[in-house]
Amino acid sequence: MMTTTNTAMKSGRSPRGRREGGRDARRAKRLARVHHMLAPLENKLPPLELLSPEQVERIHEASMAILEEVGIDFRDPVALQQWREAGAEVDDQRVRPDRALIMELISTIPARVTYHARNPERNGEVGGNHSIFVPMTGAPYLRDLDDVRRLPTLDDLANFHKLAHMLPALHSSAHHIVEPMDHPVSHRHLRITYSSMKHSDKTFMGMTTSGKNAEDVMRMCQILFGEDYMDSHPVVTGNINANSPLVWDQVMLASLRVFSSHNQPVLCSPFVMAGANTPASVAPAVAQLNAEALSGLAYTQIVHRGAPAIYGHYLSTVSMKSGAPMAGTPEISMMNAMIGQLARHYGIPWRTSNTLGGAKTFDAQAGYESATTLMAVLLAGANYIWHSAGWNEAGMHCSVAKFVVDAEQCAMGHRLASGVKWDDFDEALAAVRDIGPGGHYLGHQHTLNHFENALFSPELFDNSSYEQWEAEGSKEITRRALEYARKLLADYEYPPLDPAIDEALLDFIRRRETEIPASDELNQSY
Amino acid sequence: MMTTTNTAMKSGRSPRGRREGGRDARRAKRLARVHHMLAPLENKLPPLELLSPEQVERIHEASMAILEEVGIDFRDPVALQQWREAGAEVDDQRVRPDRALIMELISTIPARVTYHARNPERNGEVGGNHSIFVPMTGAPYLRDLDDVRRLPTLDDLANFHKLAHMLPALHSSAHHIVEPMDHPVSHRHLRITYSSMKHSDKTFMGMTTSGKNAEDVMRMCQILFGEDYMDSHPVVTGNINANSPLVWDQVMLASLRVFSSHNQPVLCSPFVMAGANTPASVAPAVAQLNAEALSGLAYTQIVHRGAPAIYGHYLSTVSMKSGAPMAGTPEISMMNAMIGQLARHYGIPWRTSNTLGGAKTFDAQAGYESATTLMAVLLAGANYIWHSAGWNEAGMHCSVAKFVVDAEQCAMGHRLASGVKWDDFDEALAAVRDIGPGGHYLGHQHTLNHFENALFSPELFDNSSYEQWEAEGSKEITRRALEYARKLLADYEYPPLDPAIDEALLDFIRRRETEIPASDELNQSY
Repeated sequence: MMTTTNTAMKSGRSPRGRREGGRDARRAKRLARVHHMLAPLENKLPPLELLSPEQVERIHEASMAILEEVGIDFRDPVALQQWREAGAEVDDQRVRPDRALIMELISTIPARVTYHARNPERNGEVGGNHSIFVPMTGAPYLRDLDDVRRLPTLDDLANFHKLAHMLPALHSSAHHIVEPMDHPVSHRHLRITYSSMKHSDKTFMGMTTSGKNAEDVMRMCQILFGEDYMDSHPVVTGNINANSPLVWDQVMLASLRVFSSHNQPVLCSPFVMAGANTPASVAPAVAQLNAEALSGLAYTQIVHRGAPAIYGHYLSTVSMKSGAPMAGTPEISMMNAMIGQLARHYGIPWRTSNTLGGAKTFDAQAGYESATTLMAVLLAGANYIWHSAGWNEAGMHCSVAKFVVDAEQCAMGHRLASGVKWDDFDEALAAVRDIGPGGHYLGHQHTLNHFENALFSPELFDNSSYEQWEAEGSKEITRRALEYARKLLADYEYPPLDPAIDEALLDFIRRRETEIPASDELNQSY
Repeated sequence: MMTTTNTAMKSGRSPRGRREGGRDARRAKRLARVHHMLAPLENKLPPLELLSPEQVERIHEASMAILEEVGIDFRDPVALQQWREAGAEVDDQRVRPDRALIMELISTIPARVTYHARNPERNGEVGGNHSIFVPMTGAPYLRDLDDVRRLPTLDDLANFHKLAHMLPALHSSAHHIVEPMDHPVSHRHLRITYSSMKHSDKTFMGMTTSGKNAEDVMRMCQILFGEDYMDSHPVVTGNINANSPLVWDQVMLASLRVFSSHNQPVLCSPFVMAGANTPASVAPAVAQLNAEALSGLAYTQIVHRGAPAIYGHYLSTVSMKSGAPMAGTPEISMMNAMIGQLARHYGIPWRTSNTLGGAKTFDAQAGYESATTLMAVLLAGANYIWHSAGWNEAGMHCSVAKFVVDAEQCAMGHRLASGVKWDDFDEALAAVRDIGPGGHYLGHQHTLNHFENALFSPELFDNSSYEQWEAEGSKEITRRALEYARKLLADYEYPPLDPAIDEALLDFIRRRETEIPASDELNQSY
């Protein structure tokens, strides 16, 4: 569908001769722009409050009743014993924590988390009105630099980590943005973690595919940050999905214990396909999700009192015609707003998903779905804004083109959330007097003083005339975005990493790869 | 770029034989669904308040100072005389109304307008939290049912009016959605108005290309609704653009006078390209726009005390690199929220623009831009939501594909704005108890009771698997949307219109077409 642009490839790869001073200067300027990470979001938008305080209370009460009366399965003997010791009613695998216990446990979850990146300039706070954008993860396919849909490799993953490193609005390199299918499943967590660490100096995520794998991630973080650093510094995030309705399984709980006992934040994420694994109705679906999330959050505090933890969820609605998960639907926007209110009610940082969508290509559907969701989550006040770049086809592929466009959309969201500037108000009103009726402002000193940052001008949107657009090759956004991604990758430079640490990471990986049999089974001894 | 789908064409056009009972039944069901107009929006979203009350006041004060000290040009001798008589300082073409006069004049603008359609079931209220979606207008090109970009004809315009009539979330058929280039400019207003009236029984807009043309529109409305009906019933909307900065011209003012003196609402719309014809800064741009809008609104009340009028604007930001107008940018979202606050402050219904964008095709850019804007204007609480379907290429073309997708997005926005339903909350919580951990809800009685309306399932988004999508022809959204548009048009039926009225309208048009020389000049004798 797309043809690659040889020009862009050549310009990145050609040898650098003596006449390239001008190009180097342009490159330096471009790099300065793209290498600058936007500060983590300080969201000045007033959060969208769809629920009255009474309605928040009504959902809270319903969630408490679900936990007390229906209960929730913790399918893991260690967790069941811990719940018993914490004073919950436990019946076979069913835990029925009462509201006093839940509320007491979650009371020690920190309201804010500061992520420490290996480059301290890339640290980021999450909680209150502070937020970060994190790329998508988990795609079994990609749409590559030629817009071809295929299985990803470790090199593809490296490219996504490089892009995440360079794109200013992304605050994390995440982890397995795509699954590196050229590597044995049982070893993947090691190579994925290394790729996140090596290709970016932003914060990242840690694999939770088993307790053992999570321990390997912790060990690699200790090598990167120092043995004791993590005791007091969040450096990595684990995601822990609940199997909605009302089940936490052993893999997830074992991983949670590893992260929480190392004082690292986990996202306690009910995996909601509303209508299939929750009631087909917004408020009761949120009540169930809230019961699930709170039980996971409470469990983190049983594991390690005071450990950071984040209220999470994956959220889709299900087509009642086909059973397919949907994105960008009004009910998802509503639920985002409602969950944001609940998370603020409990004083816990909140993770949501951003640019979800079900399109098979980067067509207009993908654009509508992603933008709707971005607006919804910004206005809902989400903190850990996951899946902020690349997601398409219900998560089945990560699109390179969409990755860079989504990241620019996040930069636009960042600007929106920064609120209205007033510092030049009087200066600009003086300009209105100068110009008067019928004039124009393009040459006025106020415009010249402010033009660079006054009005966001998206790089990847084309706003030229039809004739100019045709003369430039009639490029739709997919093609422009892929050219842009190629340019970025051509300009990529590794962020400095102490060679001794790099070697120690590789040593650890080599050792573990001899210890763990290469296999397409997960390394799942919990 | 697109190939047409013969299947859809055939199914719509084939003769109906005896074995088609099943298809007729399906068609009837489909028609029942699409012919149902969604009630005008009652927006239950709490409006996004970016400004504190002090900041609203600060902008108001700045706008008043602009009007009093800089003044605004009314380039029309009648208007200048009227302003003088109303007590304003008038100097050559410059009017400097003081704040007391402005505030006194706008105080008689009704806070709500009820549009009366020729089918009373299609009436719609605008103002407060009541809103309507109105399609785009004014495109000199279209992208047609084959996605070919070309000059539009009167038949193309009729097709858009038919689609506007059938798409449930559109509350108006507007007027010249596309310019009928096959008809002389001087006669177009007659044919455009007739097409709006004939092909849809929803409310519509009236041409303001000259005072004389506006009078023709009034006469046609009198034929359609009865001589005196309009004195007390708004039936048609005129748009009056200010030439920002701070100019109202004679064509616009003459048209305004015709509409207002017939008690028909006008949109008083500064035409803002922020950075070019306003300062390159959000708050001062809004202060200028507000001064312009209020002066137009005040003038409507000089013309006809108590006439309905709507706070309007066209809003883009300008790229400081190329001077091109942009859409979907963060500053536009901010300005929408701010203007909404001002309009509510003054208690005047508010018109904004919806799915604006600069893409040349219906690609992902178009999707992002449109969805961002839709979310922004819904959350800003806009009332008269113009350009809600079809707009692309900065308004240079109306896309058939985008028209039907945008309309569905409006339906999704309608659902979002309708707020959270609570009526099945207890029933659904009982379902949570029934299902318990690890179950699923698809077969539960609660789901069966509610599945038809519980979760919005967009017709034009594909959420099937990649394999299924491939098996169905790998159709991107443009192709699916064009097939859908063809199906709608094949099923179109004229809404009933009294043949005597129809004939009277055509008589009037024939008479005027003999009186007005056929010409490619506008009929501009004011």
